Amino acid sequence: MTPGEVIISANERIDDLERAGLRLIQCPASFCFSIDAVLLSHFATAHNYDRVMDLCTGTGVIPLLLSTRAKGLRLVGLELNREVAERAARSVRLNKLEASIAIECGDVRNFKSLFPHNSFNVVVANPPYLPVGQGNLSAVDVQRMARHEVTATLRDVVAAAQWLLPTGGRFAMVHRSHRLTDILVVLREHRLEPKRMRMVHAAAGKEANIVLVEAVKDAKPDLVSGPPIFVHNADGTYTAEIRRLYAGGDL
Amino acid sequence: MTPGEVIISANERIDDLERAGLRLIQCPASFCFSIDAVLLSHFATAHNYDRVMDLCTGTGVIPLLLSTRAKGLRLVGLELNREVAERAARSVRLNKLEASIAIECGDVRNFKSLFPHNSFNVVVANPPYLPVGQGNLSAVDVQRMARHEVTATLRDVVAAAQWLLPTGGRFAMVHRSHRLTDILVVLREHRLEPKRMRMVHAAAGKEANIVLVEAVKDAKPDLVSGPPIFVHNADGTYTAEIRRLYAGGDL
Repeated sequence: MTPGEVIISANERIDDLERAGLRLIQCPASFCFSIDAVLLSHFATAHNYDRVMDLCTGTGVIPLLLSTRAKGLRLVGLELNREVAERAARSVRLNKLEASIAIECGDVRNFKSLFPHNSFNVVVANPPYLPVGQGNLSAVDVQRMARHEVTATLRDVVAAAQWLLPTGGRFAMVHRSHRLTDILVVLREHRLEPKRMRMVHAAAGKEANIVLVEAVKDAKPDLVSGPPIFVHNADGTYTAEIRRLYAGGDL
Repeated sequence: MTPGEVIISANERIDDLERAGLRLIQCPASFCFSIDAVLLSHFATAHNYDRVMDLCTGTGVIPLLLSTRAKGLRLVGLELNREVAERAARSVRLNKLEASIAIECGDVRNFKSLFPHNSFNVVVANPPYLPVGQGNLSAVDVQRMARHEVTATLRDVVAAAQWLLPTGGRFAMVHRSHRLTDILVVLREHRLEPKRMRMVHAAAGKEANIVLVEAVKDAKPDLVSGPPIFVHNADGTYTAEIRRLYAGGDL
């Protein structure tokens, strides 16, 4: 096959990310990326030539979207499931981004043997949200791993980020706001000091359901909580802020 | 003097709290209560016949406002500064609320000798916000103590709440949102699990500056972050939500 050509299975589809012509291969029967990944991609601070690691990359949508946010980024997406990782790698090839995005298959819990200490300056993660024992475990292996902490807990992901980042390195995560205490406690325990946060609400007047947090390794405590993000208007359409994201804006 | 009569000094004034006819003695040269105290008074969960402790009570505005939120509350306001405590006690007498509100002069750091273990089922606090070394220390003693952690740190206040509350007891606090990580970490360390939170923004589109948190002793982790509170409209007037508070609403 020539560059940009990939093989697609009958159970897969190709979605237009509506951003810089990017396209993504997804398998609806296993799982598709959600708006949380889009929010994280636009929330994380990306500077030109950053070395960026996406832990639990899944479809690879986060490195694909991040690749448009600064020049010369070198991105790695780490994914445990071989089939999912292989699909993400095909999405990278479909977009001819092999030179800047590498998909690696591996277990985030083995971080010390996978990548050298201090080898990235940005780590991002949209990890499984639910502790085992909370919510219904999916019978589909890949769904279960994406939703529940069966293979990677919050603590596993944060420990990996601590290892991969030098002092001053940035870790951005999207997670359930109901777990905010766990998140801030575990980040601080790992010397990743929370510096920037956005609460995400389905709509104005609703409780938060999602939180975006950016921590800086060995930074001083001082957490700036930006304006809340509302996803939907009262009529169910996306708010102007979310539409602006899809058009390439930052959070 | 007959009940409801008090002596007022030349440097004091009497403010109408615009709530159930309540009035408050304040000394503008030392300090006056802020909207943060009003927010906390309407955020804390108050059930009929609760025994409520307000740590660092200052003017006593919080027990006064709280007294209107449920029946048969028994409230104590603890204040370190003798002059400030004495003024708060006069405000209680001015409102003829001596039967339900007691003002005690004492140091929150001596909590074990001041009050028995498990002797309250609600503790509230609007403590000094700034770590010593951050922001300008006021030359006025009373202002310095109210703003900076010179006499009571976040940790001191939370340790007192842990002592005063039994399992299931509630601790509600208003604090600077910039210290959210400190707050959630210290609460959990003291077995006070954050269960309910509201971010407070000066206006829509602005960063948060204040946070309201309610923790329950020995509860399971699960933090509900309610809708953000916006204090001012774009034209500087109070928002409908804040006006509703002053009319007696809850948060």
